[in-house]
Amino acid sequence: MIPPVNPSISVDCVIFGFDGKDLMVLLIDFTRSQTAEGKIVEKSSRKLPGSLILENEEIDVAANRTLVELTGLNQVYLRQFGVFSDPRRINSEEDLQWIEKAYGVKVSRIVTITYYALVKIDKSILQPTSEGEVQWHRVQDIRSLAFDHKHILVKALEVLTQQLLNEPIAFELLQKRFSIRQLQNLYEAILGFEIDNRNFRKKVLKLPFLKQLEEKEKEVAHKPARLYKFDKAAYEKEVKRSRLQLNFIRFF
Amino acid sequence: MIPPVNPSISVDCVIFGFDGKDLMVLLIDFTRSQTAEGKIVEKSSRKLPGSLILENEEIDVAANRTLVELTGLNQVYLRQFGVFSDPRRINSEEDLQWIEKAYGVKVSRIVTITYYALVKIDKSILQPTSEGEVQWHRVQDIRSLAFDHKHILVKALEVLTQQLLNEPIAFELLQKRFSIRQLQNLYEAILGFEIDNRNFRKKVLKLPFLKQLEEKEKEVAHKPARLYKFDKAAYEKEVKRSRLQLNFIRFF
Repeated sequence: MIPPVNPSISVDCVIFGFDGKDLMVLLIDFTRSQTAEGKIVEKSSRKLPGSLILENEEIDVAANRTLVELTGLNQVYLRQFGVFSDPRRINSEEDLQWIEKAYGVKVSRIVTITYYALVKIDKSILQPTSEGEVQWHRVQDIRSLAFDHKHILVKALEVLTQQLLNEPIAFELLQKRFSIRQLQNLYEAILGFEIDNRNFRKKVLKLPFLKQLEEKEKEVAHKPARLYKFDKAAYEKEVKRSRLQLNFIRFF
Repeated sequence: MIPPVNPSISVDCVIFGFDGKDLMVLLIDFTRSQTAEGKIVEKSSRKLPGSLILENEEIDVAANRTLVELTGLNQVYLRQFGVFSDPRRINSEEDLQWIEKAYGVKVSRIVTITYYALVKIDKSILQPTSEGEVQWHRVQDIRSLAFDHKHILVKALEVLTQQLLNEPIAFELLQKRFSIRQLQNLYEAILGFEIDNRNFRKKVLKLPFLKQLEEKEKEVAHKPARLYKFDKAAYEKEVKRSRLQLNFIRFF
């Protein structure tokens, strides 16, 4: 038996990954039926993964459920970043019908609470869903999405950019061992502009929590680069030190 | 005629102010009827300002409506910081009855979206509400609140602290002209610990967007201190400069 769902509140997840070069996002291909000139036609489009919440479920739990169902990944970085509540965000007949059929409840207005997840692409195993096929897409290639999901994606990128400037979240997207080039590629992919190579290198090599490894890249076309890893304990020590020095009053 | 309300979704607002010494929050005194030993007794407690959202209303609009109704202030700093969705967050008979009476709708589970506002106390004019009296309270004196509002207040403080370390939001709470002592009092009130006077002074006087004024404090018991103001244009210039220098990769 399916537990009762709440017809007014949903979660939607922007699941980001990084393939070493481009920022990627997980989308579902799905089909809605539409009546055009008296005939029923199928209309295909893409959407973010999401779900109405269950009546006895907290929203964080609902978001995590969506993520696990799709990627098989548990305990990944998941952050709530917004609430979309435009009373007209879902109001076409085809949208409402598709939702009512998928969940078996009558809906009118849905407020959605949005999350982004940062996953290591190489560890995710995409699961088939009842809604449609799930696939990674390059963020920069995405033109349109169903419902108001393009709007949600744009907002997610905005918050992610801000967070990237303040917290060491880049390492959630990178593989455990990475080259400086890959780190720079990730920054460039999210910030949306090129960074000077030498400046970037100089800057990040000073970070006390970036640990140089003995290993180098393998099976690459260019000269194999040195690999690094993020040292979380060293990072936390730095945060403490910076507070003691009143560096927390940084404003900019 | 009252427009229809959404019985599943509310907003709650933590409205912060600063009186030059302590961090303050706006609370409503209200009374619920409770049946004890067959008799109806009145039970008084305090709550955060909030409201069920209207069916045709965005949540940001609902939060702003709550704020304007209470303080008479429009266009103040208002930030969404969380969603509280525990299915049991409102479940006592007296809580449900009070809400149903106040809004004239049947409710079961309510998910609330929370905001904090930063206001200049001297500019706010408290308005009487139908729920009860509205008053400023010192945050550090608050022991308990109705519903899960204490939990919401604690979370608001957590997010505010984090934001205080990264953005120039202190100036939203201070009067337009302030002394370094008042700025330090504010930091200490929010961070919850004492800061060394000399270090603080040295640190903030270097900030290029803190403009020294000719004026000094008036009508104070101690030696009148020099007044300062926040120069927003200079701050924005600094942000730009810091990005060009790749200082944005600061992590800590």
